Amino acid sequence: MAGVRGVGRKPHPELGQSVTGHHLCHHRHLYQESRRGRVGLTRGKRSADGRMRIGKEADMDRERSGSDDVHGEVERAQHEKPWQRYLEAELGLRHYWYPALFSHELQEGETRPETILGERLFFKRIDGRVYCVEDRCLHRGVPFSVRPECYTKHTLTCWFHGFTYDWRDGKLVEILSEADSALLGKVGLHAYPTFEKHQVIFVWIGDGEPADIREDTQPRFWDEHLVTHPVVRYKIKCNWRVAAENGFDAAHIYGHRHWIGMQQSGRIRPFGTYPSRQDIVQVLTEDGKPKGIVKQDDIHVYARQIEGQEVRVPLWPKDAPAVVQTEPRAGWVGCYLPCGLQVEGFPKPGKVHFEWYVPVDEDHHYYVILHAGYARSEEERQAFYAEAEPLAKLIWQEPGAKPEGFNNFDAFARKWSHHAYAREDWWHRERLFKPDYIITQWRMVVSKHARSIQRRGNCAPMEVDEGLS
Amino acid sequence: MAGVRGVGRKPHPELGQSVTGHHLCHHRHLYQESRRGRVGLTRGKRSADGRMRIGKEADMDRERSGSDDVHGEVERAQHEKPWQRYLEAELGLRHYWYPALFSHELQEGETRPETILGERLFFKRIDGRVYCVEDRCLHRGVPFSVRPECYTKHTLTCWFHGFTYDWRDGKLVEILSEADSALLGKVGLHAYPTFEKHQVIFVWIGDGEPADIREDTQPRFWDEHLVTHPVVRYKIKCNWRVAAENGFDAAHIYGHRHWIGMQQSGRIRPFGTYPSRQDIVQVLTEDGKPKGIVKQDDIHVYARQIEGQEVRVPLWPKDAPAVVQTEPRAGWVGCYLPCGLQVEGFPKPGKVHFEWYVPVDEDHHYYVILHAGYARSEEERQAFYAEAEPLAKLIWQEPGAKPEGFNNFDAFARKWSHHAYAREDWWHRERLFKPDYIITQWRMVVSKHARSIQRRGNCAPMEVDEGLS
Amino acid sequence: MAGVRGVGRKPHPELGQSVTGHHLCHHRHLYQESRRGRVGLTRGKRSADGRMRIGKEADMDRERSGSDDVHGEVERAQHEKPWQRYLEAELGLRHYWYPALFSHELQEGETRPETILGERLFFKRIDGRVYCVEDRCLHRGVPFSVRPECYTKHTLTCWFHGFTYDWRDGKLVEILSEADSALLGKVGLHAYPTFEKHQVIFVWIGDGEPADIREDTQPRFWDEHLVTHPVVRYKIKCNWRVAAENGFDAAHIYGHRHWIGMQQSGRIRPFGTYPSRQDIVQVLTEDGKPKGIVKQDDIHVYARQIEGQEVRVPLWPKDAPAVVQTEPRAGWVGCYLPCGLQVEGFPKPGKVHFEWYVPVDEDHHYYVILHAGYARSEEERQAFYAEAEPLAKLIWQEPGAKPEGFNNFDAFARKWSHHAYAREDWWHRERLFKPDYIITQWRMVVSKHARSIQRRGNCAPMEVDEGLS
Ligand code: FES
Ligand code: FES
Ligand code: FES
Ligand SMILES: [Fe+2]
Ligand SMILES: [Fe+2]
Ligand SMILES: [Fe+2]
Repeated sequence: MAGVRGVGRKPHPELGQSVTGHHLCHHRHLYQESRRGRVGLTRGKRSADGRMRIGKEADMDRERSGSDDVHGEVERAQHEKPWQRYLEAELGLRHYWYPALFSHELQEGETRPETILGERLFFKRIDGRVYCVEDRCLHRGVPFSVRPECYTKHTLTCWFHGFTYDWRDGKLVEILSEADSALLGKVGLHAYPTFEKHQVIFVWIGDGEPADIREDTQPRFWDEHLVTHPVVRYKIKCNWRVAAENGFDAAHIYGHRHWIGMQQSGRIRPFGTYPSRQDIVQVLTEDGKPKGIVKQDDIHVYARQIEGQEVRVPLWPKDAPAVVQTEPRAGWVGCYLPCGLQVEGFPKPGKVHFEWYVPVDEDHHYYVILHAGYARSEEERQAFYAEAEPLAKLIWQEPGAKPEGFNNFDAFARKWSHHAYAREDWWHRERLFKPDYIITQWRMVVSKHARSIQRRGNCAPMEVDEGLS
Repeated sequence: MAGVRGVGRKPHPELGQSVTGHHLCHHRHLYQESRRGRVGLTRGKRSADGRMRIGKEADMDRERSGSDDVHGEVERAQHEKPWQRYLEAELGLRHYWYPALFSHELQEGETRPETILGERLFFKRIDGRVYCVEDRCLHRGVPFSVRPECYTKHTLTCWFHGFTYDWRDGKLVEILSEADSALLGKVGLHAYPTFEKHQVIFVWIGDGEPADIREDTQPRFWDEHLVTHPVVRYKIKCNWRVAAENGFDAAHIYGHRHWIGMQQSGRIRPFGTYPSRQDIVQVLTEDGKPKGIVKQDDIHVYARQIEGQEVRVPLWPKDAPAVVQTEPRAGWVGCYLPCGLQVEGFPKPGKVHFEWYVPVDEDHHYYVILHAGYARSEEERQAFYAEAEPLAKLIWQEPGAKPEGFNNFDAFARKWSHHAYAREDWWHRERLFKPDYIITQWRMVVSKHARSIQRRGNCAPMEVDEGLS
Repeated sequence: MAGVRGVGRKPHPELGQSVTGHHLCHHRHLYQESRRGRVGLTRGKRSADGRMRIGKEADMDRERSGSDDVHGEVERAQHEKPWQRYLEAELGLRHYWYPALFSHELQEGETRPETILGERLFFKRIDGRVYCVEDRCLHRGVPFSVRPECYTKHTLTCWFHGFTYDWRDGKLVEILSEADSALLGKVGLHAYPTFEKHQVIFVWIGDGEPADIREDTQPRFWDEHLVTHPVVRYKIKCNWRVAAENGFDAAHIYGHRHWIGMQQSGRIRPFGTYPSRQDIVQVLTEDGKPKGIVKQDDIHVYARQIEGQEVRVPLWPKDAPAVVQTEPRAGWVGCYLPCGLQVEGFPKPGKVHFEWYVPVDEDHHYYVILHAGYARSEEERQAFYAEAEPLAKLIWQEPGAKPEGFNNFDAFARKWSHHAYAREDWWHRERLFKPDYIITQWRMVVSKHARSIQRRGNCAPMEVDEGLS
């Protein structure tokens, strides 16, 4: 597992992987490492069942002393904003693979339109394979999808004048209303490469030869014996970057505290949890591997004082310390270009939670959640599927349903975060705090490593009322 | 019938008119005539009942040989875009007559507001005559129409402060809330000239003396013995130019192929039909006459091959040729400035179909359809009216009703064409094909002959939610 | 009552106040006084019951002679537009007190968001006092109000990451998800000063120390023994300036003529009424006092001729003159910065009608109506409240209810006036008339005396569909 920065990783108990290399980052001035701030802190220990046992209370006051590099870095970064390209990436990153649909959303012979990164796409499954072309006739610009016509297996005919295209390469192969058109074979639609795995249909938004999809997906997506269960694909009015930052956000577990799953699991989760040290935030920049950030939270905050009154996580023992510092968590959370998150051990140990924030346009993203686990035999596979449905319900419920799934809060948080960023210049007015350190790192890795920024080109997404008089 | 370009016209069987002149166009480089491409083609013959009898199959491959001037012209034109003024005419052409209402929509004493070319108009019928003024008080800009007050026959009083105008000339004749205002007689509303004929109320959108309305209407509108039946006036979210091009579009008959009227009439219509030669497209530019384009389609496409599989018009005999070239059709389709279409012999021989694409604003037009025929006696008039209602149903049904009328497809096509042109720069990205030759000619005649382009001036159309809190 | 310009004021019968001073305006070129136009006019006399008794018909023709300074001034002003700052005040005047809520809308412990002058505010009542902070977390910009959390009496905690603020000064006092944040005490929300009186909660929109609220409220609001009854707070799609001008509008009583209260009171009101002389329009500019305009209408128009036909106020006696000039009304109507109106003797003698046009954003204002009277004893107070409810119904009814309240017409008029001003450049195209003289004066006093103009800064109002996917 070369290419990670920071401290050596522990092997994953279930998968037997181990960290064997250590990639030296060449832009140290941005991601300077430090061990300061760790000295003298008492840490909790992780027991076999994954629950944290408290040693003794950490004197967290020291944490924000002059030697607090993380806080200082956040202050510096939000002042200097060394993430200019990220600010321009309103519409997403170009030349990447994106999850567009779940496999079950496109049955054999079915067609389906979607807008991704502002581009109008049209999908069809033919003989099991998924094809995708621009959903816009090159003649008069109409969407095929409002009245799709397919005379033969591999062709798509426009309902207006009969321009007929090959799904496989987008080429114009016939025009039903003209005799032997001189245009045949000379022009075509943009055809989008697709890839399907683990019940997810990916599409390449970019020009030229697509990159290796392994570079554009979360690492565990390629784990041996992985089995998956699609949870939801849900459109949210929120820019994809605000969504990604929310997904990866260290401290927003505060907002999740009412989640019924917390009560059910018996695990007591803190108000906030975040990395105290820069060196347990790993910046992934190795060539040929997914780029992104992996963090390990070691600070866990269980109680604070407000107006002299203690505000304490319910059920957190009265005599337990307010703040606990642990060894960096073995369970990882990573955020990967272009827009994917991977959470290990969620919603329970041995599972992997994948999610994506797929840009639709400047104001919307698709929130895509895929639940995964491991199965080495048919029996294990059956067990996985039997458990997947109830676990999926813990993760997501139709908005409005009670009790909510875990990630319903995230959908809520995003839709209410969008306004300030989109319309009140919040990219320049936000006031970040120490737990946002990983977010500043994320912005920088995107700025530095994104292949390309999607520009509002010749595509305009359909509006909700489009096609109505 | 001077002023037409191209081949001589055949007399209209019912009306006995004949083409007597031939107007020489002075911009030959744009509309260069050619007879090439006709040589050696076998043509069908039109029988007495108007149905085409096939001679033998045309070798259409030759049609797109190096000598295909029509295709070349379309390629050249869409590259050079010699129709700049047309591109600027988003809001319509100024200094023209437009059909605003059907007569039955404005009964004696009634008032009615409409927005045309972005201007807010207010109509009233007084003693049978139709008057029209700006629907905007010159004082505080409110629309009269939300609470019209008419104290006397010829006046309109604003509900706000009692400014009182004469419907006939717009002049401010009294103010009920001021004693002997110094403004009386000095200021006034814009008063729009109107004209009513054949159950259509026209309004002059322009300044100064209106043009002769005969110049701004389709020629057969003035035919002797014409009788008419209003079909529909329907607002569509689509720019008027996209609408006009759709109405006049040669090859889009492909999209109409499911029309029930085709099956009922027993006529087999091709997938596409268009003029093969520039000289059967007539550019009307004579002074004092309607300007526009008249086309005669001679190519008819009944079958094509897709992926080696024949796609054939249903009921088209197996042994009949895939493509037929006929004599140019005696029935004419013409598109006229500012925005009118005339189709002879539709929906059946002996009838005339008029339609207009009246600009409302940049994103909407009114689709106005008028069915017409001829009657020389009261008996014939009765016959016309008896037949008009069922024929109107073949032409248009309330959207959603099944089976659809013929022109419902056009409304559908337009609303789905608008997006690319309005928001995706399709005016510069469209890929026209040979049957669009007549559309390139239309754009050029508008660019060259339009009296004026309507500019977004001091009028803004009311939005749907206007006046709601 | 120093600081008024123009003729000396009569004492208010009930309150015994009298005009003791006369402020000399230093910009005489703008507000030049004149007595011309008064000579030789017969005036009505005000009887004890407040109804006007007619003397003899005024020869109003003279009124618009060359010596009509008021008309001339309106013509000049609308040509030169000496109110540039007013034109820029789309979003309201900054550094002023505004009525935000009625007291009963915010019970003890309740929270409530409002948008005023484009700023997102959040109110809470704690121990009877009203506090107000920005409704936007300084961290990620989310509104607190969608999920308010208050752990202790004086604090507000953000639902996202637990940033905790003091309602009293906006300071960040704790962060629940971080251990001992270095940000505590260093940053905070904007905290808005509030003031509550007569069942109205005011908020200071501005920076620095708020002005004395007496300068920003209508003078009678501070009268001894005043008792009040909130009538309505209603959001209208109309810019606040258009609303204020409508409220103060001299001649628009024409539109109110169908009001049932007119019939009930037995008072016959004219079609229009306005000041004939500049010197009965008072421009209030004295330091430390409310700025604004007070007008006294002396011209009353009861009948005009349209197309030779007399249009007469119903019930106005046939032999009574069409136009009556009276002594300037003792009852005053005043319009005060930032956006308040005061009408004495409405809806009946002895009452005071307050209203405000509080800017929400460029396209909306809150119409706030407060009914008031006087009570020196508990008995009089009871009497006031007993009468207030039925009087309030005369003033305002839920839109749609019949018969309408008096001010429902104003809401109607405003919503239909907004379009032309907002989208058709009506600020530069309007055609004012003589009764608008007071409006030109209002515009000038705002332009000259407004402390500051609100600019679209870093706040954007939530849209109706905000937070929906
Ligand atoms: S728009 Fe598709 S074929 Fe014409
Ligand atoms: S707005 Fe029409 S009279 Fe004033
Ligand atoms: S957005 Fe309010 S605490 Fe983070
Ligand atoms: Fe979350
Ligand atoms: Fe059509
Ligand atoms: Fe009013």
